[in-house]
Amino acid sequence: MVRPSASAEPVSAVPKATPPVTRSPERQTVALPHGLAIGGDGFMVVAGPCAVESEEQLLTTARAVRDAGAGALRGGAFKPRTSPRSFQGLGELALRYLKEAGDETGLPVVTEVMDPRQVDLVADHSAMLQIGSRNMQNAPLLREAGRTGMPILLKRGAAATIDELLAAVDYIVETGNENIVLCERGLRSFDPSTRYTLDLAAVPVLRTRTPLPVVVDPSHATGHRHLVVPLALAALAVGADGLLIEVHPDPARALSDGPQALTPADFSALMDEIHRWIPPSGRYLSTVGQTVAS
Amino acid sequence: MVRPSASAEPVSAVPKATPPVTRSPERQTVALPHGLAIGGDGFMVVAGPCAVESEEQLLTTARAVRDAGAGALRGGAFKPRTSPRSFQGLGELALRYLKEAGDETGLPVVTEVMDPRQVDLVADHSAMLQIGSRNMQNAPLLREAGRTGMPILLKRGAAATIDELLAAVDYIVETGNENIVLCERGLRSFDPSTRYTLDLAAVPVLRTRTPLPVVVDPSHATGHRHLVVPLALAALAVGADGLLIEVHPDPARALSDGPQALTPADFSALMDEIHRWIPPSGRYLSTVGQTVAS
Amino acid sequence: MVRPSASAEPVSAVPKATPPVTRSPERQTVALPHGLAIGGDGFMVVAGPCAVESEEQLLTTARAVRDAGAGALRGGAFKPRTSPRSFQGLGELALRYLKEAGDETGLPVVTEVMDPRQVDLVADHSAMLQIGSRNMQNAPLLREAGRTGMPILLKRGAAATIDELLAAVDYIVETGNENIVLCERGLRSFDPSTRYTLDLAAVPVLRTRTPLPVVVDPSHATGHRHLVVPLALAALAVGADGLLIEVHPDPARALSDGPQALTPADFSALMDEIHRWIPPSGRYLSTVGQTVAS
Amino acid sequence: MVRPSASAEPVSAVPKATPPVTRSPERQTVALPHGLAIGGDGFMVVAGPCAVESEEQLLTTARAVRDAGAGALRGGAFKPRTSPRSFQGLGELALRYLKEAGDETGLPVVTEVMDPRQVDLVADHSAMLQIGSRNMQNAPLLREAGRTGMPILLKRGAAATIDELLAAVDYIVETGNENIVLCERGLRSFDPSTRYTLDLAAVPVLRTRTPLPVVVDPSHATGHRHLVVPLALAALAVGADGLLIEVHPDPARALSDGPQALTPADFSALMDEIHRWIPPSGRYLSTVGQTVAS
Repeated sequence: MVRPSASAEPVSAVPKATPPVTRSPERQTVALPHGLAIGGDGFMVVAGPCAVESEEQLLTTARAVRDAGAGALRGGAFKPRTSPRSFQGLGELALRYLKEAGDETGLPVVTEVMDPRQVDLVADHSAMLQIGSRNMQNAPLLREAGRTGMPILLKRGAAATIDELLAAVDYIVETGNENIVLCERGLRSFDPSTRYTLDLAAVPVLRTRTPLPVVVDPSHATGHRHLVVPLALAALAVGADGLLIEVHPDPARALSDGPQALTPADFSALMDEIHRWIPPSGRYLSTVGQTVAS
Repeated sequence: MVRPSASAEPVSAVPKATPPVTRSPERQTVALPHGLAIGGDGFMVVAGPCAVESEEQLLTTARAVRDAGAGALRGGAFKPRTSPRSFQGLGELALRYLKEAGDETGLPVVTEVMDPRQVDLVADHSAMLQIGSRNMQNAPLLREAGRTGMPILLKRGAAATIDELLAAVDYIVETGNENIVLCERGLRSFDPSTRYTLDLAAVPVLRTRTPLPVVVDPSHATGHRHLVVPLALAALAVGADGLLIEVHPDPARALSDGPQALTPADFSALMDEIHRWIPPSGRYLSTVGQTVAS
Repeated sequence: MVRPSASAEPVSAVPKATPPVTRSPERQTVALPHGLAIGGDGFMVVAGPCAVESEEQLLTTARAVRDAGAGALRGGAFKPRTSPRSFQGLGELALRYLKEAGDETGLPVVTEVMDPRQVDLVADHSAMLQIGSRNMQNAPLLREAGRTGMPILLKRGAAATIDELLAAVDYIVETGNENIVLCERGLRSFDPSTRYTLDLAAVPVLRTRTPLPVVVDPSHATGHRHLVVPLALAALAVGADGLLIEVHPDPARALSDGPQALTPADFSALMDEIHRWIPPSGRYLSTVGQTVAS
Repeated sequence: MVRPSASAEPVSAVPKATPPVTRSPERQTVALPHGLAIGGDGFMVVAGPCAVESEEQLLTTARAVRDAGAGALRGGAFKPRTSPRSFQGLGELALRYLKEAGDETGLPVVTEVMDPRQVDLVADHSAMLQIGSRNMQNAPLLREAGRTGMPILLKRGAAATIDELLAAVDYIVETGNENIVLCERGLRSFDPSTRYTLDLAAVPVLRTRTPLPVVVDPSHATGHRHLVVPLALAALAVGADGLLIEVHPDPARALSDGPQALTPADFSALMDEIHRWIPPSGRYLSTVGQTVAS
């Protein structure tokens, strides 16, 4: 007899969920230098090249994104590339360029740290440490970054559940550091039309699970320049606290991820769109040296 | 020697892509009765219960969504449920209720057809035939629905690539019917936080592949009432031509999908939000008996 | 304060599971003509072309697979192709060829039915109705096929959970027909190395959930000829009751799925491997006109 | 006009594949102490507890698995747990226990290293360094482990393509170390019936891409004790060079992953099954102090 009955033993094996996280009515902001912050009523666009390739490339980009309304500068010094034959970043030299570019433009610098032994070095040259999606579950790195007390940008892994992201947060929180911004950057999926599937529902889901700010990276998620603007606006509408946007002065010659980088002109057009779309959000754009009321 | 060389034979086996579809500068609109249309500069909200449960439940909902600004009425007469022990819909009786509710409120009726043998029956009682995600690759159904010449709402399968969705479109187009609206309703993924992962990037991707209008169903995608509003606004911002929203006068007693249904009051609040967010989109809201300029 | 507490409300939204299905100590066999059966201690290899292309192609293949030890003949008359521009099958003509080939070789014929209106026609020409993975949740088709009382081969959808597969079984069982064989044929996943990801764990999982026999289709799952043999042996070792194998006399000219088809010589080599591997399974090979003891 | 034309621009965005890796006719073996090796004609079962919990727990397990026919001892000293509130391993103390247990039983010790700063410490206490699936793309760790020249067991990430796994291999190979064994341990997927979806096709796919040995971990992949034996046999049949099996003297009290651990008696029964199934594979079982001819 095939028909089901109620007496069966369930075959259920979901990975153990971590303890549930407080639904907090109060949302937390994470302070950056120069009076800037991520979270609260501000909306911040963090922009810059995927990888720092030269002093000039970085400075050109930094000035352009600041002038267009970015609130922080991103740029990779150490790049977590899939293959060792891909460009690995300029390392310490890139960190010096980033510090200079941050000092000149007034933009706080966000850059990735990949190795627990380099946390102090990266911390000395930046305002916020990025933990990339490949390292979301790298416990030694989470702990070492946490111990600096610096703001941390934690990207969700491409195959990480919300529970797993929040468990990774706990590794940082255990060090006493709660200056954490989460970043949704796309899930591994099956459709080759986009590089990853951007899970924008993660933003309101995280709102009910944690007071931490949440930003969205439409550049890595889609992998295509022409998809960045619509997904960026969708991220604003869904309630994100900001964006990570890749900008390169000459994407065709970029040493990494060129197809998804905006030119400075594209970025300026994106910021124009954000200005048009920000009023209904009730937010203001967090920019350097000013806060542009919506 | 482990090191790769250039001479290797690739092990590649992606399912054969269908021939690419024209990138069309002209976007197509799909006309509905009463001068309404999906596509172009209009933004249409199709709303109603997951399943028609009674004449009163349907009429109450239909009046409420029309008054709040919906442009069409959705409701299931035949329900494609996972289990035969779940409510299967009222069938032909529900079709009569839908026709009555459409006549009374002036809302065009959109309802699902699941069986090629019922296409004519469903067509007689509705303005637009919905092909559900489970049937996206049901060729006999696609053809039979296409032959009516009526507008068709084709939902993307939960594990369908964009190429496969466009190949399903071709089955309808082959019958000579191009009155097709596509619907993104979420992809099967691994995170239990939401029922499916809503792939909003599909909207701008489809824009480059087809002139057909694209709407988004945040109700089925998320499965949670509190996620419907933020994802609906994100769909508007990403460039969708409309929404499918589930509304039920008493979600706690709904016979199907209660947790994702909005109450009439929730729906009214959603429409208020859409009014606030629609201006930057350059669109107007397509409603019955009027077109509300943004 | 970011640290989790116990008071939080879980954000969980897995699709409602169907009621659990009896764990049955008795495994069921499904009888086919000529004293053959799937399930129990037999291991049956169902082989034949993806699509019936001509009388000669089919007969050549049928004779070859029977001589090599197949227990049933598969072949598509109606093909559920992604695109309408792909070969759709020879239809009724193919059904006649299948019946002839079955009669000549003594092999029971398994062929797919896609349209509820064609169930009787297909039933008249075959011994077992196949419901393909695209139609696993096509309720009208499941019911119409069930009503024939004939053996049914139900393939798991490429994105279907075990719960959903068993719920589809229920649609057939509700018609009073319990002659059902399940088939694992690969899940949609992200790695382009194979067409789908064959979920062999589904075989022992299903053993604890249902008494129905379970077979495995390594041809569709992998999409590559050279992967069929190792996965076929793995299916035997994991406890499957049989295999579905695509065989074509000239794969390079096959009208569908050529890259995954074995030649008759390849198939014969596969059967030799199965003879070598079957002893530890404690099963015998179910073949036409004989039962080869292991 | 909706119909596709040939002139369209493809929207394709698969992550850049790494250069293809040599298809090698010669398969490589990786030597371990005591004349043991992984690869070639041997089949090795690496067994032990998920985490080392005490000297006695480890020794009891080590003796039991050696007596039953294991060829190496696994056990976690540093555990990459999702949450910091889960048991993190005994660390250096566990390493000492592992070394003792290896010395006493003659089993080479395989244990995971998670932090580049601990590579030398772990290397001093083991015969083979395991890089876990969460760290498959942790470049600093891959490089540091590679530099020891020791054998490395590299587990595929739960969402890693074959290309990405081979790119991770390249990080180790660049240090001059080619003593690498790959491990398939299940992909993240959508069905809660199993913890991950074991991709057994990866074994023959990897055979065409690399000469490195490939083993399979059915314990982590399935997460259920009763699924370990069938999947282990399937791994043997598909052509794997060995297995990783979790064994615990008292799984109900295990500090991590108890539901998937075999008892020593279960493990002994598994080894009996492997003895029954190994003859057709043409392999012999690699065990300590002997090589059992099949």
